[in-house]
Amino acid sequence: MMDTRRDFIKKSSMLGLAGALSPIEKLISTSEEINMKNKEQTKWLDGSRLIVSISMQFEAGGQPVNSESPFPQNMQKGYVDLPAETWYNYGYKEGIPRMLDNWDRLGVKVTSHMVGSAVLKNPSLAKEIVQRGHEAAAHGMNWDTQYMMSYDQEKKFIKDGADAIKNITGFSPVGYNANWLRRGENTLKILQELGFLYHIDDVSRDEPFIIDVNTKDFAVVPYTIRCNDIVLIEGKQFSVDQFFNQVKREFDQLFVESQHKRRMLSISFHDRIGGTPQIVNATSELITYIKNHHGVSFRRKDEIAKMTLEDKTSVRE
Amino acid sequence: MMDTRRDFIKKSSMLGLAGALSPIEKLISTSEEINMKNKEQTKWLDGSRLIVSISMQFEAGGQPVNSESPFPQNMQKGYVDLPAETWYNYGYKEGIPRMLDNWDRLGVKVTSHMVGSAVLKNPSLAKEIVQRGHEAAAHGMNWDTQYMMSYDQEKKFIKDGADAIKNITGFSPVGYNANWLRRGENTLKILQELGFLYHIDDVSRDEPFIIDVNTKDFAVVPYTIRCNDIVLIEGKQFSVDQFFNQVKREFDQLFVESQHKRRMLSISFHDRIGGTPQIVNATSELITYIKNHHGVSFRRKDEIAKMTLEDKTSVRE
Amino acid sequence: MMDTRRDFIKKSSMLGLAGALSPIEKLISTSEEINMKNKEQTKWLDGSRLIVSISMQFEAGGQPVNSESPFPQNMQKGYVDLPAETWYNYGYKEGIPRMLDNWDRLGVKVTSHMVGSAVLKNPSLAKEIVQRGHEAAAHGMNWDTQYMMSYDQEKKFIKDGADAIKNITGFSPVGYNANWLRRGENTLKILQELGFLYHIDDVSRDEPFIIDVNTKDFAVVPYTIRCNDIVLIEGKQFSVDQFFNQVKREFDQLFVESQHKRRMLSISFHDRIGGTPQIVNATSELITYIKNHHGVSFRRKDEIAKMTLEDKTSVRE
Amino acid sequence: MMDTRRDFIKKSSMLGLAGALSPIEKLISTSEEINMKNKEQTKWLDGSRLIVSISMQFEAGGQPVNSESPFPQNMQKGYVDLPAETWYNYGYKEGIPRMLDNWDRLGVKVTSHMVGSAVLKNPSLAKEIVQRGHEAAAHGMNWDTQYMMSYDQEKKFIKDGADAIKNITGFSPVGYNANWLRRGENTLKILQELGFLYHIDDVSRDEPFIIDVNTKDFAVVPYTIRCNDIVLIEGKQFSVDQFFNQVKREFDQLFVESQHKRRMLSISFHDRIGGTPQIVNATSELITYIKNHHGVSFRRKDEIAKMTLEDKTSVRE
Repeated sequence: MMDTRRDFIKKSSMLGLAGALSPIEKLISTSEEINMKNKEQTKWLDGSRLIVSISMQFEAGGQPVNSESPFPQNMQKGYVDLPAETWYNYGYKEGIPRMLDNWDRLGVKVTSHMVGSAVLKNPSLAKEIVQRGHEAAAHGMNWDTQYMMSYDQEKKFIKDGADAIKNITGFSPVGYNANWLRRGENTLKILQELGFLYHIDDVSRDEPFIIDVNTKDFAVVPYTIRCNDIVLIEGKQFSVDQFFNQVKREFDQLFVESQHKRRMLSISFHDRIGGTPQIVNATSELITYIKNHHGVSFRRKDEIAKMTLEDKTSVRE
Repeated sequence: MMDTRRDFIKKSSMLGLAGALSPIEKLISTSEEINMKNKEQTKWLDGSRLIVSISMQFEAGGQPVNSESPFPQNMQKGYVDLPAETWYNYGYKEGIPRMLDNWDRLGVKVTSHMVGSAVLKNPSLAKEIVQRGHEAAAHGMNWDTQYMMSYDQEKKFIKDGADAIKNITGFSPVGYNANWLRRGENTLKILQELGFLYHIDDVSRDEPFIIDVNTKDFAVVPYTIRCNDIVLIEGKQFSVDQFFNQVKREFDQLFVESQHKRRMLSISFHDRIGGTPQIVNATSELITYIKNHHGVSFRRKDEIAKMTLEDKTSVRE
Repeated sequence: MMDTRRDFIKKSSMLGLAGALSPIEKLISTSEEINMKNKEQTKWLDGSRLIVSISMQFEAGGQPVNSESPFPQNMQKGYVDLPAETWYNYGYKEGIPRMLDNWDRLGVKVTSHMVGSAVLKNPSLAKEIVQRGHEAAAHGMNWDTQYMMSYDQEKKFIKDGADAIKNITGFSPVGYNANWLRRGENTLKILQELGFLYHIDDVSRDEPFIIDVNTKDFAVVPYTIRCNDIVLIEGKQFSVDQFFNQVKREFDQLFVESQHKRRMLSISFHDRIGGTPQIVNATSELITYIKNHHGVSFRRKDEIAKMTLEDKTSVRE
Repeated sequence: MMDTRRDFIKKSSMLGLAGALSPIEKLISTSEEINMKNKEQTKWLDGSRLIVSISMQFEAGGQPVNSESPFPQNMQKGYVDLPAETWYNYGYKEGIPRMLDNWDRLGVKVTSHMVGSAVLKNPSLAKEIVQRGHEAAAHGMNWDTQYMMSYDQEKKFIKDGADAIKNITGFSPVGYNANWLRRGENTLKILQELGFLYHIDDVSRDEPFIIDVNTKDFAVVPYTIRCNDIVLIEGKQFSVDQFFNQVKREFDQLFVESQHKRRMLSISFHDRIGGTPQIVNATSELITYIKNHHGVSFRRKDEIAKMTLEDKTSVRE
């Protein structure tokens, strides 16, 4: 990999001497379009140079009483934060339906990590997500802190959540996401035992990779905290424009790199946040922009995991 | 509702195949303008497709000593935060008068949730708000935490605030807003008993809806925390441009959706925040932009509540 | 005042019916240019319609050990935060000199509130500020919390700071600014006794006004927390562009209003913050923009206070 | 220096009277291009008017367990924050390799402050940095708090880190950066004893300067907290666009000033932050913009330190 990178650099710096001040991105794509002979090997199995993977977290309705919300975190004990509940309810009343319409309109299939308790609370919506062609992935039975559980507790916790999804939607989840990505020491073993193919609780790479779990291959399809509505909008208190511009820059760079290296862009939306009018408006604009590039495809994470596991050239650790 | 949504999607995706890369928003509005036969039923009773509801909170002057402000929250006990008081005073000295002029200039009527103690402190300004055609709605007698009150305490608290408004302005409030939206378990019952028609302490939908309170209809006219100056400017520490761009995106999406579904945009301003020159400047620009769209009207929340209660097609929960 | 405002509104709303969608700001300034007969009385004594007042706080070098800075606030007791000291030192090594050059280049005179201990630390720089035509105003002897002092303590504290300024720069301060605007109950009395003409620790109005202190007139020249580098850049963590755009909007609105009302824009810079290249770059752009408007002048706060005290039409409280 | 500055101002203000409203920056550069006779003395020894110095901190992999990260800082004791570890790992898996490619593409050499433990964790990457022409500078043996160490502890801590770098990369570090810039009282003495030429833990000036340490000259090459990814992106929670625009303004102002004064722009990137696609995308744009100015060069800090120490006109303190 190192050698390939250096060769590439050598070529493009020589080129750089010739055509000085033109926008760097154009320069690079032109130079590589012409010079790179090993283009094929950098592609994904489906022929894409860059894959975009969107998550649509389905959590609202399953949250514990007085969960964190944009309302001041100063409720007196013994009382319920009623407006905060309506904020969560927005997720299934407006958020998921709006995003579902948007994905259809844009022709995009996404991965929906579903909390078991949220699925039980709104079964018909969970079912609709799957019926409209999206992937149902597991996200725990509820919002409990997973990394502190014993092996048995955790296995039941994961299985209960997956069973809820399967029973309601008919879709058997093969992917997993722990609350705040915080898996414990046993999580991967349990996932392998339960037949899962991949997890996403890793932000170390801009492409999926294979790890060994219980002496078998297991896929890691990295999630994101840089292109993630809950981290940026609620955590960092970004405005929607900041979110939009930042993900656009992320795409632009990965698109350039995907000329010589397999790349993946991960974007994440949560029902009550990514489903607001302002974010869906920006998402439409963003995805329309992304779709206007050749060689980019939108894939569900189960598809990505399977391609990764089948591909002899996948990164291994 | 689900069926309607799916039909819409089917139509617009087919259209999507034909005209690939044009801006998605234009695509949608064109396609629907042509194809939708059931336009009428999605409209509001007044013929609007989208209603914008503006709140102008009248609170300053009624706040307790050393209330939260942009000044460092580290006052030593026993001393008064004098500059913070002048920050609050700005609300009635400059903020409300400036906004009142702006609403007149733009031809917009708003809903002013008035804290009883603020009304008593500046009666002539409260009166002027009503005289200039705006709605006076109730917002508690003072800034006390409402959700912890007993039934009797709370009933008196609500009634005293409403009476103060009625006595000073001549306007009988029919709408209610609790401090930080935090109603208690008895609040709705009390409001129904006192003759209120609606409350706003709910952010679960982008349109008003009807709930059952004491076996009678009661309207919920959702407030906002996404298009709210105190949440964005003071809480999230947005700049004015961030506020402006975010609300603009919210409008753009709701306007598109209002082709096939009744929609409402709620925007909120507070005397000492929304009344600054920088925000009024942005508000003028925003509302001028919004007014440049057909089928959009600006309504007071009492008008919205009445239309909702009279409309057989309103959402019910 | 109310009547004037209403007349104005009546005129501009009628006009609004005629010329619908043109930018509201243009509409207003045109309509008033033509219709307002009472233009004169809204002007300042010097003929300006809008006055811009810039503060350049001179504090660095006088701060206590381990004062708040952008470095993590987690120093172990007994150690000095050395890089934080260099951050403060930037204020007199680069910040003030850069701003002084900028004011000269732009032809603007400002008010420099000087902490006594900072003046003693860098006397030649304090002197240079005055020699280059700027106002030296008082800002306490050091960074102590003023509002908790006894009458005698506070009088000495204020006088010592003013004396330091006078002795070093030859300029007798007539204006005062308390640390974080937090004056105590005795501050105004003391200032009046010591011969001060005005203080700035008030953010309640967008124009100066007169109050009664010790049965004599005393001017209040409002400071700002909306157009203030320490509040926006360090407190709210704005980027420079956010700061710039926000102050620009503030100006735009006040300029429109200054057609029918005397208005003042207050902007504040601190040595170690407002004196950085990035902010001075934005400041140049901002002030160049402002200067491109007729009827706007830049004034030192001592000039503003004197005009206010001499003007029969000044607001009184 | 003061005289030079005043002369300059006099010239440019006179010019200002003639050509009123043209952009101030253009005005200044034109006026000086023509009038300044003493251009030579303001240049750097290498003939540059402005030098840009980029840091690429190499720290990831060497961090203690559960170091601060963008994940919620609420881990229960006794558990490892596994996703946070993957966030750090991104620094060497994607971040540094991506930045290395970018520097080559742009033709820029940078200074890499390397934590000893990070070098030992990823020796081949550390080596590659040096092989590709960048400077290896010291950054402590690990992430320990340096300012609390005894003289002996600290000397060993610094030497161990420098030795790790030398042994792995073959490069003998001559520059030093303490964790969060927090040197102790003995640090400079130790650095001088160990043969270092400069340190960067100072933000007091926009140009390097010479101090006396152990009666010998020692260079200070100021670091930055205004153009620093960890401060802006993680600390202030800037979006990438905010970062980009702010550094651009910093450059624009320093470029203007560099007509009459030696200036340096310091920019800092950290492996796991500055190496993300979104920031590298902005960095490419920024550096391409900067390179489009005459008289600007990019230099490693060891080159800057040497030029400073050799230059008779360097600032001394």
